[in-house]
Amino acid sequence: MHLKPIKMAVGHRPLCLQSFPVLFWTCSLLLLGCGCVPMQRDMAKEVASYTDVANQIIKLVLSGSAQKRSYERLSNFTDAIGNRVSGSHNLELAIAYMYNAMSQDGLDVHLEPVKVPHWVRGEEGAEMVLPRPKTLAMLGLGSSVGTPPEGIEAEVVVVSSFEDLKSRGANVSGRIVVFNQPFVSYGETVAYRAFGASEAAKLGAVAALIRSVTPVSINSPHTGVQDYQEGVRRIPAACITVEDAQLMARMAARGQRVVVRLNMGAKTLPDADSFNTVAEIRGWQHPEQVVVLSGHLDSWDVGQGAMDDGGGAIISWEALSVIKDLGLRPRRTLRAVLWTAEEQGGVGAQQYYQRHKANISNFDLVMESDLGTFAPVALQFTGSPAAQKVMQEVVQLLAPLNTTRLEPHGEGTDIGPWMQAGVPGASLHVEDDRYFWFHHSEGDTMSVQSPGAMDRCSALWAVVAYVVADLQDMLPR
Amino acid sequence: MHLKPIKMAVGHRPLCLQSFPVLFWTCSLLLLGCGCVPMQRDMAKEVASYTDVANQIIKLVLSGSAQKRSYERLSNFTDAIGNRVSGSHNLELAIAYMYNAMSQDGLDVHLEPVKVPHWVRGEEGAEMVLPRPKTLAMLGLGSSVGTPPEGIEAEVVVVSSFEDLKSRGANVSGRIVVFNQPFVSYGETVAYRAFGASEAAKLGAVAALIRSVTPVSINSPHTGVQDYQEGVRRIPAACITVEDAQLMARMAARGQRVVVRLNMGAKTLPDADSFNTVAEIRGWQHPEQVVVLSGHLDSWDVGQGAMDDGGGAIISWEALSVIKDLGLRPRRTLRAVLWTAEEQGGVGAQQYYQRHKANISNFDLVMESDLGTFAPVALQFTGSPAAQKVMQEVVQLLAPLNTTRLEPHGEGTDIGPWMQAGVPGASLHVEDDRYFWFHHSEGDTMSVQSPGAMDRCSALWAVVAYVVADLQDMLPR
Repeated sequence: MHLKPIKMAVGHRPLCLQSFPVLFWTCSLLLLGCGCVPMQRDMAKEVASYTDVANQIIKLVLSGSAQKRSYERLSNFTDAIGNRVSGSHNLELAIAYMYNAMSQDGLDVHLEPVKVPHWVRGEEGAEMVLPRPKTLAMLGLGSSVGTPPEGIEAEVVVVSSFEDLKSRGANVSGRIVVFNQPFVSYGETVAYRAFGASEAAKLGAVAALIRSVTPVSINSPHTGVQDYQEGVRRIPAACITVEDAQLMARMAARGQRVVVRLNMGAKTLPDADSFNTVAEIRGWQHPEQVVVLSGHLDSWDVGQGAMDDGGGAIISWEALSVIKDLGLRPRRTLRAVLWTAEEQGGVGAQQYYQRHKANISNFDLVMESDLGTFAPVALQFTGSPAAQKVMQEVVQLLAPLNTTRLEPHGEGTDIGPWMQAGVPGASLHVEDDRYFWFHHSEGDTMSVQSPGAMDRCSALWAVVAYVVADLQDMLPR
Repeated sequence: MHLKPIKMAVGHRPLCLQSFPVLFWTCSLLLLGCGCVPMQRDMAKEVASYTDVANQIIKLVLSGSAQKRSYERLSNFTDAIGNRVSGSHNLELAIAYMYNAMSQDGLDVHLEPVKVPHWVRGEEGAEMVLPRPKTLAMLGLGSSVGTPPEGIEAEVVVVSSFEDLKSRGANVSGRIVVFNQPFVSYGETVAYRAFGASEAAKLGAVAALIRSVTPVSINSPHTGVQDYQEGVRRIPAACITVEDAQLMARMAARGQRVVVRLNMGAKTLPDADSFNTVAEIRGWQHPEQVVVLSGHLDSWDVGQGAMDDGGGAIISWEALSVIKDLGLRPRRTLRAVLWTAEEQGGVGAQQYYQRHKANISNFDLVMESDLGTFAPVALQFTGSPAAQKVMQEVVQLLAPLNTTRLEPHGEGTDIGPWMQAGVPGASLHVEDDRYFWFHHSEGDTMSVQSPGAMDRCSALWAVVAYVVADLQDMLPR
């Protein structure tokens, strides 16, 4: 497919002047690392020359024709498709939807094939049988095996940590382990969801029920992927609610015998065909050099996947739209990649890396938004000190958004392989204090999104991507 | 049943001194309304003489043998019984549980029979059929009729207010009305839950789905009672989640045809036998005069009914326990009443009022806790200006709890009839900013309660009840 002709932006520098800062910037690179004033001043000057174009981008998104468009696109998309777990028909629909939508938007779109895991939840349910009958809200965990058709009924042992589990020793055999770990942080506590089943199985447990990894619950189960350890028996694993984990913990602490019946029809089918969805504005000077903007298109099979990560996918598209709408075309290629099967461990992104890593020297910057598209507060960035200096100047262009903070450590499952190989990486820090309330649950819907916050994310995303892609030189490694 | 002998509290005024403030207080009443300094000083002096006993009560609860007992009692109770809707076997179990527990605690306990509504939910479910299939989390509303066995499938009309509904006119006939009203406050917004079905039925709707009345949702439906208007066709009524109401509103706004299938097995059986559960410490001087402390024992048929209103019931019991433990016995009778069928409109309390209203002149103060037992911030009070002056002094005794604020307007469905007839009423204002997140949902569990906050509620409740019951004179009307 071909890029449509793009008109010049009113007020943008004419092409004939675009080579103006080359000399200064090249000299700067030669002086790199010495901290000399001329380098900093010249680089700063080059970046500052984008102030007008940054203001145009921000204005178009916050109060111009692109206002509320990110939210509209996200709601049109997620309302139409719903959730879209790896291997599902919904994910196929989602990829087709975005392929068409971005093509109709005038972008250069193509699909790159990926083999993805195909886990299906099936019918499932859990009930506390003793000391009194009670339905337990639950969600099986991704990659879990199912139970036998008749289910598993067993006495429960409630533990508060992996250490507590080990201290139970022989008492775990034949039991269902309930992990009632406190929520400390997602990064720390998610270990129980990821490894709880195998740790319990090592001691002979027949199933594992893990307290959902969230600081706030309205009896809400949260799913996610879990990892079986090689050589350890695979037992069914599901998450239950904070409330029910605490209930069974209190009962067990009283010496009551707690018995649970678990039924899970989960199974893993052969890997399915899927695609990373790629849309581009090709660079006018160095089309082989790329700035990647990304989010993942797949989600869990609950809620709408609006927050995780429809928002990240949409602002990556939207950033390209805005740049196109303004008639801008940077030196380098802007590439929006909507990853597939991120939730299964960045599967689509890993295959993308394998396919493109030979070209790694042309990857200027990889950006990912996968922590929500609430109001942005900063850009997170991983790169060399010299690259950080450039980015420190770039974020000053975000002054109209009041987000001129550059924080260390860009992050994202999908951009991880590139960053580990030395490519600078950026991610979006947003007001995410409620993110894990909804994460991987039925509560991840459009109701948590706001048009204004999404506009701010899109504007930030567009300014950063455009300016980095248009600077005279790639970011120093 | 008889009150067990109660030992004297260490440090409490000996009985022989208990008539000391009579003269001053009587004089004060004669001067009532003139605002004279002597009246205020003498009343203040009498109340202030309870400082030591108030401190003893607070110490016993916050750091003595009663510490964490309120929470333990509530969790033992609600973990064992679970929820307990009017007419259910669980409510019978709950009443028997509390009768036995309070009797074993040494209180004088009896049951007063009440006829209560017996609505049963039955099997229920809702699904959006068009524009795409999606399960809708829902809860039928109390008193709703069911659907025919085959369910109701109809196109949806989404409205944002009663005015919006009326403006749809003929378009409502044969449709399911989805009320997507914004949450303003519980008091204001609950009108849609209460009256939505009949208002929709007046225009020919076949069912009503009401957005749950809550400011925060993790796809959580909240139930509650609804009222059919006389002479209007009774159509099935259920609550759905904020998320699904907003989803269907967005779809309808796009011009999409939204079709929902609703199945509800709800029905109303003949009234059931139930009881108000009453525990007393009889007054030594005026046993016929009473201070009522209360909460309701019934709940909705979801969650544990820990917050609404297990906590209120338990602190009313606990206040009597603490007073008994300290060997205190006030002049007047302290009566804990655990109402039945409050959720159906204060049914138990209304029958209690009818049974006892002839004795209204002996009702000194009616207290109810039904807004949660989170950390207390103030006592709410309805009474004459003269009574307010007394209570203003009483709350000064709560200085160790840092809750010396007296706010206007005591409230409570169950104490309403007495307050309307002129009896002073008090209620507990707590840190309730999250109350409606969990209210009438599966999230109303022990997980929202904390031992420390409940201790503070119990201590406040005990001090206020004891002092008012022991003052020389009843509160002026």
